[in-house]
Amino acid sequence: MSGKLSRCTYKTESSPSIVSSACVGGKTEKQGPMRDYFDKTFPDDYCGMDTYEQAESFMQKKAIELCLDKMCAKSDDIDFMFGGDLLNQCTGTTYGVRDLNIPFLGIYGACSTMAEGLLLSSVMADNKVGSRVLAVTSSHFCTAERQYRFPLEYGGQRPPTAQWTATASGALVVSAEGNGPYVRAVTIGRIVDMGVSDANNMGAAMAPAAAETIAEFFRDTGKQPSDFDAVVTGDLGTVGSRIVCDLLLRDGFDIRENHKDCGMMIYDPEKQDVHSGGSGCGCAASMLCGYFVPKLRACEIQNILFVATGALMSPTVNQQGESIPSIAHAVWISSSKEEN
Amino acid sequence: MSGKLSRCTYKTESSPSIVSSACVGGKTEKQGPMRDYFDKTFPDDYCGMDTYEQAESFMQKKAIELCLDKMCAKSDDIDFMFGGDLLNQCTGTTYGVRDLNIPFLGIYGACSTMAEGLLLSSVMADNKVGSRVLAVTSSHFCTAERQYRFPLEYGGQRPPTAQWTATASGALVVSAEGNGPYVRAVTIGRIVDMGVSDANNMGAAMAPAAAETIAEFFRDTGKQPSDFDAVVTGDLGTVGSRIVCDLLLRDGFDIRENHKDCGMMIYDPEKQDVHSGGSGCGCAASMLCGYFVPKLRACEIQNILFVATGALMSPTVNQQGESIPSIAHAVWISSSKEEN
Repeated sequence: MSGKLSRCTYKTESSPSIVSSACVGGKTEKQGPMRDYFDKTFPDDYCGMDTYEQAESFMQKKAIELCLDKMCAKSDDIDFMFGGDLLNQCTGTTYGVRDLNIPFLGIYGACSTMAEGLLLSSVMADNKVGSRVLAVTSSHFCTAERQYRFPLEYGGQRPPTAQWTATASGALVVSAEGNGPYVRAVTIGRIVDMGVSDANNMGAAMAPAAAETIAEFFRDTGKQPSDFDAVVTGDLGTVGSRIVCDLLLRDGFDIRENHKDCGMMIYDPEKQDVHSGGSGCGCAASMLCGYFVPKLRACEIQNILFVATGALMSPTVNQQGESIPSIAHAVWISSSKEEN
Repeated sequence: MSGKLSRCTYKTESSPSIVSSACVGGKTEKQGPMRDYFDKTFPDDYCGMDTYEQAESFMQKKAIELCLDKMCAKSDDIDFMFGGDLLNQCTGTTYGVRDLNIPFLGIYGACSTMAEGLLLSSVMADNKVGSRVLAVTSSHFCTAERQYRFPLEYGGQRPPTAQWTATASGALVVSAEGNGPYVRAVTIGRIVDMGVSDANNMGAAMAPAAAETIAEFFRDTGKQPSDFDAVVTGDLGTVGSRIVCDLLLRDGFDIRENHKDCGMMIYDPEKQDVHSGGSGCGCAASMLCGYFVPKLRACEIQNILFVATGALMSPTVNQQGESIPSIAHAVWISSSKEEN
């Protein structure tokens, strides 16, 4: 059975393929345990540019170029693309891709952006609206700190629940034709706001959204956590990861054995001072594009449920006392096209 | 012929319908020539809320509620929605829709948002990914001024090329089933940056993007400007409108006779001090949802090409000396389903 399974879950008919993916990272990512999974890392956070914002845009462009190189394609071979990031007005993306001349659809899902971009690209490729559709996103520690929190020079203290915005970018291309890994189903998330208003505890704010989307996916598809090598959340960190497992257990889904969180994978909590783990659009994007997709392609793992989460607040409304609405989208990626 | 016509132009197969639309406006819009086309206007820009940001979110929620009321539907009857706005992190939307419990996909296209949302909703409905898909956007003069330019209290001078951000919101629902008006084709735009860096002359920055998308649509579909009652640009204002007509004339497309610009329609330039016209996501959205869609439904007009334009810069990168990348997406809306 394929097509629309519920209001928000769609099972692909042609199982479109992620035909290429690439990721780049910054200095802290280069020092972390996942360093070998990045296609390129930069020795400093300026990446040779004049401003941090230019550096973020440059990383996005670089991730796309590497992704296209791997599939021996040029930007003209891409029908259109989805892209977005955390910066005000998504300028990490718009300035990063403006020279590529690829028809562009901007998206905003905060740290859930790669799940949203992959979801939309897959639906478009599955329905032959585009032959090859690209999704890209990025984040940068220095652009995010000064926009969301304090200027770096201020040296503000960070509580233990805070997370470290990854300096990274990931890009991938989805096509109706290809040899996998295959996108088998997607679930569009709802906005969930449980009243958390502490911008230094994003994991707690986002975990309920992740739990709701994961439970919805399992109910709509009839799948179980044990059908997946990993249920991969985006960047819940240590605090949010415990919460999402607890919430799902109450719903009858035990993901404790096979839960992975990109925010807990990207850095070494013993050696790197990242508090509750990594975050930012680039965190989930780079772990998906650099680690999970290649492992699925090599059939080292068979199935993952990729669930990137986003906190949809801004400093302005947070300062006005508002709580943090969150969202999560889910994408089932498999090394096989047929039903297992 | 339907389906993918080119890299970026898609002709719908089922001609999905805009089954409902609604718009709300603020005080300045209530004083303008289009006042009777708003479903509701508010006497002051707070709309009864404590902050301008809350007011913008409230307007979005109100536009959706009115849109659903007109089609005798509840939020549960909508499969999923696309939404976005001009505010940092699109909080006008996320806080406006968080209580509706509708699966949500955030988009960012600055003032092109309604064209992007309508385009994506139409493609989703056409391919039966969703039965009823909603698109919404908004803008607010007071939230935009203090975010993009100066605090209102500063009383900054505005040059004649500047435009007035509309305080307005529009929402519509697209369904594969319905009695029109029908979405017949869409063109996804590319980012165009001709080097304009004056944030007080958005019309000049956006006009080349509009011209490129309109020319692309005409070439891909074989249509002519004379096939349309109106080629409707979003918010180019008086300066950008002249430029888009000139640029298209060079490409062999004369739209001077039937060009309409929402930014030039929404206010009275003689009586209202809006300089070069209206702008903001809410400008094109309210003119589409309140004026053009009802006229198409009543068969008072037969065909429009709706081309909302967006300037994809932020104050941060603009202050770093960057020019303004722009985009435009096109949607052909018709009162008839069959080929004329």
